[in-house]
This record gives sequence, structure tokens and C-alpha cells, in this order.
Amino acid sequence: MRHLLSIADLGTEGIEEVLRVTESFVEVSARAIPRVPALRGKTVVSLFYEDSTRTRLSFETAAKRLTADTMNFSVSTSSVKKGESLRDTVETIEAMGIDAVVVRHASAGVDAAVINAGDGWHEHPTQALLDCFTIRQHRKSLDGLHVAIVGDVKHSRVARSDVLAFTALGARTTLVAPPTLLPPSLAGWPVAVSHDLDAVLPAADVVYLLRMQQERMTENLLPSLREYTARYGLTRRRAALLHDDALVMHPGPMNRGVEIAAEVADLPRAVITQQVANGVAVRMAVLYMLLGSGAGLGL
Amino acid sequence: MRHLLSIADLGTEGIEEVLRVTESFVEVSARAIPRVPALRGKTVVSLFYEDSTRTRLSFETAAKRLTADTMNFSVSTSSVKKGESLRDTVETIEAMGIDAVVVRHASAGVDAAVINAGDGWHEHPTQALLDCFTIRQHRKSLDGLHVAIVGDVKHSRVARSDVLAFTALGARTTLVAPPTLLPPSLAGWPVAVSHDLDAVLPAADVVYLLRMQQERMTENLLPSLREYTARYGLTRRRAALLHDDALVMHPGPMNRGVEIAAEVADLPRAVITQQVANGVAVRMAVLYMLLGSGAGLGL
Amino acid sequence: MRHLLSIADLGTEGIEEVLRVTESFVEVSARAIPRVPALRGKTVVSLFYEDSTRTRLSFETAAKRLTADTMNFSVSTSSVKKGESLRDTVETIEAMGIDAVVVRHASAGVDAAVINAGDGWHEHPTQALLDCFTIRQHRKSLDGLHVAIVGDVKHSRVARSDVLAFTALGARTTLVAPPTLLPPSLAGWPVAVSHDLDAVLPAADVVYLLRMQQERMTENLLPSLREYTARYGLTRRRAALLHDDALVMHPGPMNRGVEIAAEVADLPRAVITQQVANGVAVRMAVLYMLLGSGAGLGL
Repeated sequence: MRHLLSIADLGTEGIEEVLRVTESFVEVSARAIPRVPALRGKTVVSLFYEDSTRTRLSFETAAKRLTADTMNFSVSTSSVKKGESLRDTVETIEAMGIDAVVVRHASAGVDAAVINAGDGWHEHPTQALLDCFTIRQHRKSLDGLHVAIVGDVKHSRVARSDVLAFTALGARTTLVAPPTLLPPSLAGWPVAVSHDLDAVLPAADVVYLLRMQQERMTENLLPSLREYTARYGLTRRRAALLHDDALVMHPGPMNRGVEIAAEVADLPRAVITQQVANGVAVRMAVLYMLLGSGAGLGL
Repeated sequence: MRHLLSIADLGTEGIEEVLRVTESFVEVSARAIPRVPALRGKTVVSLFYEDSTRTRLSFETAAKRLTADTMNFSVSTSSVKKGESLRDTVETIEAMGIDAVVVRHASAGVDAAVINAGDGWHEHPTQALLDCFTIRQHRKSLDGLHVAIVGDVKHSRVARSDVLAFTALGARTTLVAPPTLLPPSLAGWPVAVSHDLDAVLPAADVVYLLRMQQERMTENLLPSLREYTARYGLTRRRAALLHDDALVMHPGPMNRGVEIAAEVADLPRAVITQQVANGVAVRMAVLYMLLGSGAGLGL
Repeated sequence: MRHLLSIADLGTEGIEEVLRVTESFVEVSARAIPRVPALRGKTVVSLFYEDSTRTRLSFETAAKRLTADTMNFSVSTSSVKKGESLRDTVETIEAMGIDAVVVRHASAGVDAAVINAGDGWHEHPTQALLDCFTIRQHRKSLDGLHVAIVGDVKHSRVARSDVLAFTALGARTTLVAPPTLLPPSLAGWPVAVSHDLDAVLPAADVVYLLRMQQERMTENLLPSLREYTARYGLTRRRAALLHDDALVMHPGPMNRGVEIAAEVADLPRAVITQQVANGVAVRMAVLYMLLGSGAGLGL
């Protein structure tokens, strides 16, 4: 593994390997001093073209737990504004001896490891990996599970990466959304589609809610947030349709009261903060697999 | 101690304890390598809703001297803008395994230690603690001292926390300000009030100047900065009214020539940079008391 | 050496010493774990008044390789906006026990080491030092070399520091630029001037291209970028005029297709990424020489 750009690059085996390595780092994260020397002397830079505090903090925490050095810069205030190409920016970073670049932007042909943190190629591979890991903590395997992904699939890099990863691990996916929030073409997507959340919920093992952006209203893709919630929100009433072992997931940040009712977000079956916690361990695994010297995890 | 939200939560004994622990860390800060392993493996995040470079750098320096990891983000560019509740933001940070959050915003009911860095509840408790510590370096005790707090009390979280802390340690406080810059009600504040700085200075042991914001002019709370300086500025002439042991303090950043004359800020009795230096040690003490494992200071 | 404000402060011997120390740190940077404990316990703050991600990352990487702690803040969002003088800001930083301040702004009379990172006094001394170091990697000595500096000399702090450093090490410099992009007076500059790049290139040992800013068009200093490229750009045709050992340099970020053709930037003789890599080692040398305890490099 040289870069992590897309879930598709990993394949089923690659995904399985990341999840195995993640196990070790979940254990590390639980220690009183959650730190291993696996990446001592390595430097990881986060280079974010759009701000994402959550993902950046998760990657930085992961790197620090592996004893890597971290630096970050937001590209909006950097030389990219001055018209430098991304290629030159990344080459510059590389020339400084930096080992990995966590980016929200496409990039290729560079020597430093490049980790897609959620924008380029319309993917967010580490989110999909942590989602798989979280489901497996509860259900042992994704094989044969039924996942309902609900909401703004059209604008979601999470949805695309999740569908790829869930499918690779044997789950089947139903997208539940109004037609205006589905991609213009789903050709080649291994998914079913529904516009009726109530009908889908009783058979779902996982209901994965996507964040509803305010912008969709102004773009006339939705009549109103209230209408969206009425038809696609996981209200208390709808959550009662789920079977006992079904999980509720969300990539965060949540709009409580829009795509998810506040009290549903606080149910034990809602594993949203576990997703966040597993995110650090999954990113440790990815960083380790890209940068580790082969000298072991340093556990 | 689980959080540090308000001086009122500490009480006299709590304040005394912070000041005792601070002594040790003043000593650490004076070492060639000012670093102890007391918080090895802990992670402290500063989450600032309004920018305050000085306070942020002071907390980060404190955390690094205790061997904690630090990360920071300015909330103006983060997911809070996206409508996420602060509670969800802090829960997210917590789920990543972060041990303490230094915030300029109210927050409650979370597991990570929360340290109020100067905004919520109109308080700035670590500033008050470092002010007490600085006074004690010069006067042994605050008991029986007379402190004059001069300026824009109405908009000052420092003033409120200082009054609470000074009073808890036995000092009495006089607020000196034009009526427009005093809070609408002082009911319950254990203070005297004066509008005549010349009359107050000869009997003051400490004159504590608050920063005068340009905004007060545009809000018509003051006729002009020049008029403010004429009546409430610590000019050279006024500084001569102070008795020999009286201290001049300021929370920074100073407006030289407005609330304090440039040459007064440079007098030996002006302990303003000592306040800054003590700020690091006080914040080490607070972080240690909130996060330390009980295994000792690691001195 | 207390501060590094200008190349002129260093003199020939000082420059030579920095370059000697840099050699050691180039070696350190090539290690699997590129880190020495030379500045353990020291804290370096970057305080940038205008954003410069590249220079900031280079200094931070340098400091981390020396085991110093780093913190940074962009002054645009800090208390400087609130009207605090730079002197008070730096004194505040100093009072916190911070050992060095990397600034893009003039400053004087402070105890912490101050390193000019490229703005004050119209200089960028560490850039000039890394340029000298890079040339010496290829040509052993600058003595007797002929350097052509091409482009917007008028607005370039790099040009000024480079002329001083190249001259101190025995090279002679020709400035090649349209009259509108030369300083109003070159009195005292030890340089030749030309407006004919084709005539200069065959005898040049180094052609140093400056970044062409879009702003120059709107300021009417240039008719068009296309015209600039036609007369002063290092096109493929012009690069062929260079002798075999001549080097092509650029401080970055490049405008490919404007001051340098994309394919010229990728020639082996273009040592632009080596400049970036050497930047880290040169900044390690400067930090070490300003902050080191005399206990050795810790190699």
C-alpha cells in the first residue's frame, strides 16, 4: 500500500487487513498512555482544502499515538491561493522530508504517502473503514447484513465509500432518499433504491443517516427541512420500527432534530460516538500500514 | 476537581491549593529543560470560539511542559459553523480519547475535563489565579490588601473572576470606572465603587488596569479615548500617587497611552510580564490537578 | 549570534559558519529517524504577519528535528489586531519562557532570539543561506560564479538577501528585469543590470528566477504576463542557451508557464526541490546556532 485514495484500491482483502491492524490500535487507545513508537521520526502533514476539524483532529490524534510528528495547514490561507499547482505544493512538502500528506484533494505521482481524507474522487475511505469496523464490533461480520443509507447520497462522499466497502465485505445496501438527492445515475452502484423509509427499516441491520445540509433548501432540492424530517428523518416513532439488534450510525456532525431525533441519537443502539473513537484507531492503522518500517507495531 | 469553570467552584481552599501547586511549576519553568512527565500520554485540545492567541499559547506551553500532547482548533472555522451543537462537538472530541478541552464557551455534562479559558459564565478563572499568584510573590498574602480595579468592568470577565478570587483570599476591592462602564447592577458584588481614581490610588496596594476597547467609543459609552485617559488612565502623574510597595497590573494586551502610560508600564512596580510568566505555571497547576494520575508531579 | 535579522549582520564568516553547520543537519535529515536532541526543552514560536505556509512548515520541521517544541500563530487573527504593539506581543511570548520567535516583521530589543523569516528590512536571510548552500552542493564554491537574478527584483526580499549573500561569498550578480521591476535606485548594490536575458544566459552559472505576481499587471508595471514571459521567462528555447553546468533556481512557489516553462522546471539542472530540502537543514543550523547550549549538536 503506497497511498490510500479510494476504497476501490483496497479490495476486500485490503479492507480486512486494515480492520485487523485497527484491532491492535483500539487496544493501544485504551491504555493509560495510549502511545506506541511505531512511527517515531515520521512527519505527517494535514493539508486541508476545506476545513474539517473533526477529521483533522482524528488524524492528528492517530499520528501522535504512533509517535509521529504532525503539522497542519489549511490550504485556504496558503500558497495554493497564490496560484501554485497542487503538484508543486506536495512536491515542496515532500522535499522537506515529510512522510505523509493527509489531503482533501486529488493528487498523484508523488513519493510521500497520500491519504485521501474525504474529498478527491468523491470518496472518504477512512470513514468507510471506521464504519465497517464499528459494525463488526457489534455484529462480528458484515456478510449478509442489510444497510440502509438514508439522505443526501448525491452530495455525500461518505455514501460512495461506504457502499463500496459494505459491498466488498458482503453486505447489501439500500439507498433511501428523495429522487432529488440521489446521483443522476446509479449505473454500476450495487444498491437497491427506495423512497419509503418506513418500509425499509424493519429489515435493516444498520440505518446509516447522512447529514442534511442547509444548502439543499436554497438549491431547491428540498421543499423544507421539516418536510425532509417528516419523510426521511429517523424520528422516535420510526426508530421503534427497527429490530432489536439494529444499529443507528451517522458520520457527524449531526443535525439533531433534522435527519435524526435528539433522543434517537442518545439511544444505546446509536453507535455514533463509537464511530468517532474507532476513527482514531482506523487512522492509526492506515498511517502505520503506509509508513511503518516493517519493524512491527511497537505495541 | 473535575472541571474549572468558575472561581466560585474553587473556594478559598481550592484557590490556595492551585497556588501551592503553581509554586512547583514556577520552579520547573526555570529549569534549562522546563519539562516534567506528569501528563505523559494525555491530550489537551484548545477549542477557542474567539481568537485569543495569548491565552492559547499560555495553555499550550503549560501542557507541553507537562509532556501532554496538544492540538488546537479555532471554532470559527470548524463544524460548529455547520450547526453542530457544542455538546456534540465536545462529545466528538471526547470520543477520540482527548483528556481535556480548554474552551472559551459554556459546556457541561461531559467526561473530558473542561477548563474555562475566559468566556463562558463571564469568567476567566485562570487569569484570576495567576493574578493572585503574582500578588503573593510580592506581598506574601492578599489578606487585608486593597485592590483597585480600574476601567471597563462591565465588559470584563477578568474583573468578575478577580473580584471573586481577591475576596476569597481576604482582599477588598474598589472598582473605579465611569458609570457607563460598570455593570447595571452590582448587587452581591463584594466591592466598593468610585469614580475618582486620584482619591483611590494613595491607599491602593494593587492597581489593576483593564483593557480599554476601541469599541466602547463607537457604542457611545465614552466620549473619547483622550477623555478616558484624562480621568482613568494611569498616567505618570497618577502613578506618583501610589505608595512605594504598590503594584501595577494589567491582563494584557495593553493599550499604551490609553489605560496606562508607556513609561508606567515599564516601571519596576508594573508586574505585567510576571503575570504572563506565572500564567504558564498556574495553567500547569490546573491541568495537573485536573488530569494528573495521582502519581505525583514528576518533578 | 543573538538574532538573525539580515544577511548583512552575518558577514562572510557568519555565512560560512551557517553553511558548515548545515552540512551536519543535511546528514541528520537523511537518517531514518531524522532527529537530534540539540534543542530539547526549547520552544520556538512562529509568528507570521502574512501567511507563508512553505516557510512556516520549513521552520517547524527544522525545530522538530532538533527536538524543540513548536507553536505557531498567524498574527492576522491575534491580539496584534487589537492594537497591541509588536514589542508587547514579543515580550508576552518571551515572558511565557519561549526561546525563539520566527517572525515576518521587524522587531528589536528583545531577549528571545528573533529570526527574520522574510519580511522586515526587506530581507529573507534564511532563503539566501539555503540558496548559497544549494549552489555549493553543485559547484563547491560561489567564488567567481556569475548569478543572473531574473524578474521582479523591486518587490523581492529574496533578491536583496541573495545579492548580499552571493557577493559576500565572491559571486557577481546581474539583475535582469524590465525597468519597471527594478528598485528606483540601485546605488550601493554590487550588481550589474541588464534588460536582455538572451545575452546574459550563456555566461551565467546560475539563473535565479523570481516569482511573478499577478498584482504587477493590475499595477500597470507590466503590459501582460504573456509579454513578460516572452521577454523574461525561462522558456525551453532560452534554457538551451545555458552552459552544461548552469543551475536553474527559484524560491517557490513557481508560476509554471510564466517565469519558468513547465518542462524547464523539471530539468535535472533545475534544483528547486533541493532548495526546499536544504531549507530545513539551513533553518536547523540557524536555530541551533541561536539556541544551542554549546553542548554540541547531539548528532
